[in-house]
Amino acid sequence: MTWKRWLVGSPIETTRAHEQRLSIPLALSVFSSDALSSVAYATEEILLVLSTAGAAALAYSLPIAGLITLLLAVLIASYQQTVHAYPGGGGSYIVARENLGTIPGLVAAGALLIDYVLTVAVSAAAGVAAVTSAVPFLREHKVAMGLLFVGIIAVGNLRGVRESGRIFAVPTYLFIGSLTLLILVGLWCVLTGRPPVEPPAASISGASHALTLFLLMRAFSSGCAALTGIEAISNGVQAFKPPESRHAAVTLFIMGTILGSFFLGITWIAHVYAVVPGAGQTVISQLGRAVFGTGPMYFMMQAATAAILLVAANTAFADFPRLSSILANDRFLPRQLATLGDRLVFSNGIFILSGTAGLLIVIFGGDTHALIPLYAVGVFLAFTLSQAGMVMRHLRERDGRFRLHATVNAAGATATGAALVVIAVTKFTHGAWIVVVLIPILVVSFLRTHRHYFYVRSQLSLVEMEPERPIRHTAIVPISAVNRATIYALRYAKSIAHEVEAVHVGLDPHRAAKIQQQWKTWGGGVPLRILESPYRSLIRPLVDHIDDLMHGKRRNEMVTVVLPEFVTAHWWEGLFHNQSAFLIKGALLFRQGVVVTSVPFHFKR
Amino acid sequence: MTWKRWLVGSPIETTRAHEQRLSIPLALSVFSSDALSSVAYATEEILLVLSTAGAAALAYSLPIAGLITLLLAVLIASYQQTVHAYPGGGGSYIVARENLGTIPGLVAAGALLIDYVLTVAVSAAAGVAAVTSAVPFLREHKVAMGLLFVGIIAVGNLRGVRESGRIFAVPTYLFIGSLTLLILVGLWCVLTGRPPVEPPAASISGASHALTLFLLMRAFSSGCAALTGIEAISNGVQAFKPPESRHAAVTLFIMGTILGSFFLGITWIAHVYAVVPGAGQTVISQLGRAVFGTGPMYFMMQAATAAILLVAANTAFADFPRLSSILANDRFLPRQLATLGDRLVFSNGIFILSGTAGLLIVIFGGDTHALIPLYAVGVFLAFTLSQAGMVMRHLRERDGRFRLHATVNAAGATATGAALVVIAVTKFTHGAWIVVVLIPILVVSFLRTHRHYFYVRSQLSLVEMEPERPIRHTAIVPISAVNRATIYALRYAKSIAHEVEAVHVGLDPHRAAKIQQQWKTWGGGVPLRILESPYRSLIRPLVDHIDDLMHGKRRNEMVTVVLPEFVTAHWWEGLFHNQSAFLIKGALLFRQGVVVTSVPFHFKR
Repeated sequence: MTWKRWLVGSPIETTRAHEQRLSIPLALSVFSSDALSSVAYATEEILLVLSTAGAAALAYSLPIAGLITLLLAVLIASYQQTVHAYPGGGGSYIVARENLGTIPGLVAAGALLIDYVLTVAVSAAAGVAAVTSAVPFLREHKVAMGLLFVGIIAVGNLRGVRESGRIFAVPTYLFIGSLTLLILVGLWCVLTGRPPVEPPAASISGASHALTLFLLMRAFSSGCAALTGIEAISNGVQAFKPPESRHAAVTLFIMGTILGSFFLGITWIAHVYAVVPGAGQTVISQLGRAVFGTGPMYFMMQAATAAILLVAANTAFADFPRLSSILANDRFLPRQLATLGDRLVFSNGIFILSGTAGLLIVIFGGDTHALIPLYAVGVFLAFTLSQAGMVMRHLRERDGRFRLHATVNAAGATATGAALVVIAVTKFTHGAWIVVVLIPILVVSFLRTHRHYFYVRSQLSLVEMEPERPIRHTAIVPISAVNRATIYALRYAKSIAHEVEAVHVGLDPHRAAKIQQQWKTWGGGVPLRILESPYRSLIRPLVDHIDDLMHGKRRNEMVTVVLPEFVTAHWWEGLFHNQSAFLIKGALLFRQGVVVTSVPFHFKR
Repeated sequence: MTWKRWLVGSPIETTRAHEQRLSIPLALSVFSSDALSSVAYATEEILLVLSTAGAAALAYSLPIAGLITLLLAVLIASYQQTVHAYPGGGGSYIVARENLGTIPGLVAAGALLIDYVLTVAVSAAAGVAAVTSAVPFLREHKVAMGLLFVGIIAVGNLRGVRESGRIFAVPTYLFIGSLTLLILVGLWCVLTGRPPVEPPAASISGASHALTLFLLMRAFSSGCAALTGIEAISNGVQAFKPPESRHAAVTLFIMGTILGSFFLGITWIAHVYAVVPGAGQTVISQLGRAVFGTGPMYFMMQAATAAILLVAANTAFADFPRLSSILANDRFLPRQLATLGDRLVFSNGIFILSGTAGLLIVIFGGDTHALIPLYAVGVFLAFTLSQAGMVMRHLRERDGRFRLHATVNAAGATATGAALVVIAVTKFTHGAWIVVVLIPILVVSFLRTHRHYFYVRSQLSLVEMEPERPIRHTAIVPISAVNRATIYALRYAKSIAHEVEAVHVGLDPHRAAKIQQQWKTWGGGVPLRILESPYRSLIRPLVDHIDDLMHGKRRNEMVTVVLPEFVTAHWWEGLFHNQSAFLIKGALLFRQGVVVTSVPFHFKR
């Protein structure tokens, strides 16, 4: 186990759980990297759609970015109310379930789980794209690089939440710093009318689509990727230092302001400098070269972009396991997901998240554009359900200024709901259908899991438990040879039951006769029964005999089959033995009232 | 299990074992297909070596074939003495072990096992070559075809020896028939000076090697492939109808006569018609077209050749499992290889043989020429050891005409020994080294296995067995919740031990308190102990507690851990449960005196 310790650190005592809380600066780096990092690709996704309608269409990027920023403001205001109403962590699942009912809650939960997986996949892909924009020859290794980076973040998270916060604070602040610089220098250049240091690498070769309203809506849908991740804070209020809600609301506001300014600034400068996606470079990369030139500042910014995108995956690593554990505690997911590992993190959730995201990276060839259409549907579904739930809550609780609060949340719900419809319609054939199909499947799985646990609980219930009385119980010891191991098994059987019987399945008459002879010396008064086996099967006669004991004249309630089991010094020596014991166990597993016990016999080296 | 029944047939009763014996005609088809089929490639292998020294060198094929036929005659005479001396089956292993000692016996056994695997691989590859000579477009599927045919023979053998004899008698006699016709018609054409119906497809393009003695020796080594398989009868005397030895000796003589005439005949006609290997056709195929033309007789002969080559693999399928079972009974191989399956065949041996041969076909790309050099070393090693063993036996027993008999066997041993040296030297770099390396590895494995069983037997021995006395025994029941399954487990524990203790590993203080509360009602007088677990490990505190029970003040001899085990209606529901039970079992497996018992709790649907 030493390699595990080296990788994830020593176990942490349960009582230290409270220390693992985050201050605002640390929380900003843990929870906002997802939201902030999306400016690295959101503008690009808008331009990618618009550019199909020719150069003139690009001007629409500004009003679209403005609209999305407005949506952002509404959402931030809306979520600030959520973190106050749910200091214990108010993810969309909890809010929707409590205020709208179980099914809407599970829909939100399914949407969020998919969203987290996609966050990891998209962020890794976009982060790799930032690297390959600067270092083109790495482009052919993008899938392997994506997987590597998912692996690194997974290990960081297995070490525990505070340590991963520390590891990841540096890139977040480096990114904030270099983008602030990019936008300030860029604005100054634009306003003073300077030409770009390096002209953009890509240009538009003409229109392939007409500039329709549908195309504009599709561009809007693509740009909505900028808003992914802002719900993370509301989901993780518990991880803040007390007072949790206030700290979370402040963090939300800071994050929203930074995100909005970055997104608008980048879109504006890209528009003025006529940057369009293409030529194997991201828009941000071309922007960096235009503003800074291909120098140290550019490489620094690309590195920071790559780093925060990879760290963005970390947001999902903080939230996916947390949400799964909530679902598991509510018995909508297997209980194993509710268990804290020895570093106080939900290790199973981390494994599932990194595995699924890695699979997506492989399937979609590590391509950001291919993954984005899957992304926004889940996010906006969760937004809408959460805000709608908040409206219901205000109308029910009717406290203080509930009309104002309800209006804010209703505005949020309406705006995100409208966006959701636009996204689902315009992106349906581009991959959104996968998510539309997947969410119902997840909801049904949640419900079936829940029903399973319900059945289990009802069958385990002690109501109408029959009163205790002695169990009628026979132990049988299958014997294939008389030796030390079988005699130990026999003695053990005599110690656990009053009625004991040895049986030998007679595959070979000489052997059976020899065993009967030896039994006179070693049987210790236990009767030996030879079972016939005309077809040389070991199992069949034994099973028939046990059925006879259970259902025949004697009607035992329980039969214990005591088998000697060889424990060898080397694992490979085990291959020489125990096959019969294994087969016997398999054959008797589904028989009511039959217990199979192995008495280990340890070989010395 | 119905598909298994359909594939291999119903089980056969043990008492029918004696009926499964072979008459001479049936035995000839089962045991001689390997030897006879080798004429399909032996001449070709000689010509392949000689042709590298130019057209003039091909004349040496006749004396080389003559020398090999002489060797054949010596071997047949020699093996006839073996089948008389060993009516119970006198394979090289038995003869060498009994007369030369264990190590020579195991060397022979290892050589034979390798030989059988190669027989299957070479025969499948050569059989496929016969098909692709006639139907060229199949050439690209030769590996898949090879694997398919190995699979078919394996299934035939799993059905049992007599049935496989019947299935395979037809092709053997078809081959004998069509080759007799080929040689008779061919001889008539040659003697009457007629030209070939179709001139040979391949020709020689000049010499790349000088005609050295080494080259001639290499050609001889290659041609020795003709002699592979003649030991099969001596190995399988037991399978003949009584009187086994006489029937076996007669079959040996018939086989030797057919084999010798075929080999000489083919080599002569090939020489006269200047047939050389190449052009994607086997020598036999070109010979068939030269004698019959590309008509029905040619296709019939190719089909028969393919069929007998595939059936040749069957010889190995009769002998490999038989030899493994003898080795397993002598405890040089795992015991599972000694067990007769429900169709009276050694199923495990059949699985291992077909798996290994299939692997060889894949590795060597289904190419006969690549496999042949590996082949002859093992065969001639076994021949030599067997004949040498017979010499020792005659000198020891000194019965009747022992001087004559010893001389015959000594001639055999000397001839095959000399051939062995020639083969090993001339083929060493072509692949024979693999076998030279593998045989010692096998011998060491045999010896280690034997030593393992020896240790097992000595440790299982009842000598100095301590007298029976009551076992001091505590049952402990780990409880994670108080429910029907745990109460059943508790009641079972009370029925098997006088001292019972319930333990709960306290991961959650609320839960522990709840369990203590419920215990007052449901504990049934059994004490409940709460174990502390500061690092949330379930296993560690339990293991420590058990160690304490075993080695602390109380010093139990045995502790039985009784776990409730959930048996769910659907296998996937099992994924939701039992992980703890599995971990506990794993952790306690290597602890002396600890028995882990699962009490099944069956869920209804």
